[in-house]
Amino acid sequence: MSVIYERVALIGLGLIASSMAHAMRRAGLAGHVAGHARSAGTRATAQRLGIVDSVHDRAAEAVAGADLVVLAVPVGAMGAIAAEIGPALTPGATVTDVGSVKQSVIDAVAPHLPAGVHFIPGHPIAGTEQSGPEAGFASLFDNRWWLLTPLPDTDVGALSRLGALCQGMGATVDCMDAAHHDLVLAVTSHAPHLIAYTMVGVADDLRRVTDSEVIKYSAAGFRDFTRIAASDPVMWRDVFLTNKEATLEILGRFTEELFALQRAIRTGDGDMLHDYFTRTRAIRRGIIEAGQDTDAPDFGRVRTP
Amino acid sequence: MSVIYERVALIGLGLIASSMAHAMRRAGLAGHVAGHARSAGTRATAQRLGIVDSVHDRAAEAVAGADLVVLAVPVGAMGAIAAEIGPALTPGATVTDVGSVKQSVIDAVAPHLPAGVHFIPGHPIAGTEQSGPEAGFASLFDNRWWLLTPLPDTDVGALSRLGALCQGMGATVDCMDAAHHDLVLAVTSHAPHLIAYTMVGVADDLRRVTDSEVIKYSAAGFRDFTRIAASDPVMWRDVFLTNKEATLEILGRFTEELFALQRAIRTGDGDMLHDYFTRTRAIRRGIIEAGQDTDAPDFGRVRTP
Repeated sequence: MSVIYERVALIGLGLIASSMAHAMRRAGLAGHVAGHARSAGTRATAQRLGIVDSVHDRAAEAVAGADLVVLAVPVGAMGAIAAEIGPALTPGATVTDVGSVKQSVIDAVAPHLPAGVHFIPGHPIAGTEQSGPEAGFASLFDNRWWLLTPLPDTDVGALSRLGALCQGMGATVDCMDAAHHDLVLAVTSHAPHLIAYTMVGVADDLRRVTDSEVIKYSAAGFRDFTRIAASDPVMWRDVFLTNKEATLEILGRFTEELFALQRAIRTGDGDMLHDYFTRTRAIRRGIIEAGQDTDAPDFGRVRTP
Repeated sequence: MSVIYERVALIGLGLIASSMAHAMRRAGLAGHVAGHARSAGTRATAQRLGIVDSVHDRAAEAVAGADLVVLAVPVGAMGAIAAEIGPALTPGATVTDVGSVKQSVIDAVAPHLPAGVHFIPGHPIAGTEQSGPEAGFASLFDNRWWLLTPLPDTDVGALSRLGALCQGMGATVDCMDAAHHDLVLAVTSHAPHLIAYTMVGVADDLRRVTDSEVIKYSAAGFRDFTRIAASDPVMWRDVFLTNKEATLEILGRFTEELFALQRAIRTGDGDMLHDYFTRTRAIRRGIIEAGQDTDAPDFGRVRTP
């Protein structure tokens, strides 16, 4: 593949940004990749591992001369970083982000960008429970969706160029409205994360069942929840605070449904439970058929020695 | 290893029983393994795959002459099958089960067993989301716990012999009281399963977010839930109906906690969310350190092509 952007600036050097650096290098999509992270430790790690071509102490330095700027910081930090880099952006440059919430990022970032800069919010539906520059890898986006939520006046040329970059990194690109994105993700990601955090917190709290037993006898259900509940606390705090309405709506719906199932358990309504559990099985089959998960038992999970 | 039981009868030939057959064969733990399943299709599959040494149309036939009988049917079917095989059991034989709930199995099975038969309830903490005789494999129990919940008058010799079999299949054995087992498993398995089923059901129901989008953009959280929610409907219906009190207690605790987190989201209490998410991370580390899950990102999940 050929170079799509001459100079890409990654603001934030965590799992997503470092994976982008690896994926762009794999396919030769960027002439030069500049990186900035707020933490000196993260910058040193990125330097040591050679993840980007240049590491900068200041975000404004990193974006100077860049034709693509990627904001890859927690959603709650997007506004401040946009204010910081706004004056240093090159006219004609594209700014995108990788935040898990889109409307609040648009509200926070757009006012700080000068005219002549293309702002195209984005969200790769990819990740692991690990974080930081050492967690990144080139194939993270392979066969995953990269959602873009362009604004009504988005330049078509800038949009297709960014889309080509995402595809070059292995992803499939789709566009949607920011509000719709935030609702879809509340269902498929935000609510499930809060629920997993909650269940693991409950287990941690339980006094009669000691911690060591919960860990020792952690069965399939709970083990899976703990992986999700090991995700980055700052990132997820910001997701919930900025996608408040959609998350609370889905959680309300979830509680209603949970109460209906609890009632079926209490009254011994086995048919209701059986029908419900049969219906949910079909969703799993759909996800596997759509190529979005493996059909290997237990995810083909690596066995502990 | 040497033969521990001359003749083992597996009643039910699903994931757990067929994995036991493979694991016993791997280590040469049984002289002869007889099998019975209610469904003719399952019996034919077991026969075709050669999972057991003999397949029997009637459960009473399978247990005749066996020194170990394993009840591996859904928890709700344990009582009826015990009534059926009771008169055919050999004096001195051991009867165990692999149900996910222990007190209700004891209540349902014990009355049907003749004097002179050792009843030692058990539960291997192992499984995948798949079911049926084709889903079994020899290493399912490797490095997993096998919990036994012996009754107060259990014969020590019979107990240690069964424990040796479980160890021979790769598991580590622990004993506990049935009621305590049911509470621990309500936390680590039963409540998480109901929650996963509920969340997947909510997603299925949502009208504004179409099914195809939920499947298409299924992100980490939701994908993991769908695996759990693809578990066998009959098995799980029976688990909830028979471990009703403990499950409802944990779900009540869960809802209380979920409401506290929802309130933190609504009021914008970021510190509370951050502290909570940091605490749950520690549980994951504990499980990995205890060797009960892999530290590979995303479980080392097999990547879809």
